[in-house]
Amino acid sequence: MTGPDLRTIYRHYLDCLNRRDWASLGQFVDDDVSHNGRPLGLSGYRDMLERDVRAIPDLRFDIELLVIEPPVVASRLRFDCAPSHTFLGLHIDGKRIAFTENVFYTFRGGKIAQVWSVIDKTAIEAQLS
Amino acid sequence: MTGPDLRTIYRHYLDCLNRRDWASLGQFVDDDVSHNGRPLGLSGYRDMLERDVRAIPDLRFDIELLVIEPPVVASRLRFDCAPSHTFLGLHIDGKRIAFTENVFYTFRGGKIAQVWSVIDKTAIEAQLS
Repeated sequence: MTGPDLRTIYRHYLDCLNRRDWASLGQFVDDDVSHNGRPLGLSGYRDMLERDVRAIPDLRFDIELLVIEPPVVASRLRFDCAPSHTFLGLHIDGKRIAFTENVFYTFRGGKIAQVWSVIDKTAIEAQLS
Repeated sequence: MTGPDLRTIYRHYLDCLNRRDWASLGQFVDDDVSHNGRPLGLSGYRDMLERDVRAIPDLRFDIELLVIEPPVVASRLRFDCAPSHTFLGLHIDGKRIAFTENVFYTFRGGKIAQVWSVIDKTAIEAQLS
């Protein structure tokens, strides 16, 4: 493919999220993006991310494993954060938790078109019990 | 690398699980395998799988997405099954559920040495409510 490779694009995408640069999200995310089968579109995807950041003000995306075979990127992300109230239906109430997300992204034209994400809720529950 | 590539090895590994051929597991899984950071070893890993199959007699591993960048394989697996009693602490009691697992495997010498798995518990909960 021409232009930056998916590894570079993906790292820039996470930088964009980590600096809350929502205005630039469309450089990385397709207008017709879907998330776990839901056709959110770019504006719905941005809404989801903004909601996540309101619920988790110190949310930061860090790569633990990255596997790329175009057009698909698979990433294991690690989070260490303190959700203010509830997250995934769990009452966190400001407690610091660490958890992972294993997520696949299908790219189209250099932008994220499909996201298939699974967050390790079981690990969070174990930290609350 | 010499010998079969990781794609072929991984598909044969899932075939091995789907036919419950535990005696052949050591062809695909390293003696010192770990699962989500727990050092299970081959025998502990086999125990885990045998427990899974006792809990879910019709458990079948099907690939939805496969991304390979040696030595790591990332796989999105889809399950459509009926756990007999509890699964991930949820009371399933024979109800048919569909869910996914996003999982990374690090290979060493052609065998699975580390597994980082996340199962979509949230999706299962949604089907029970």
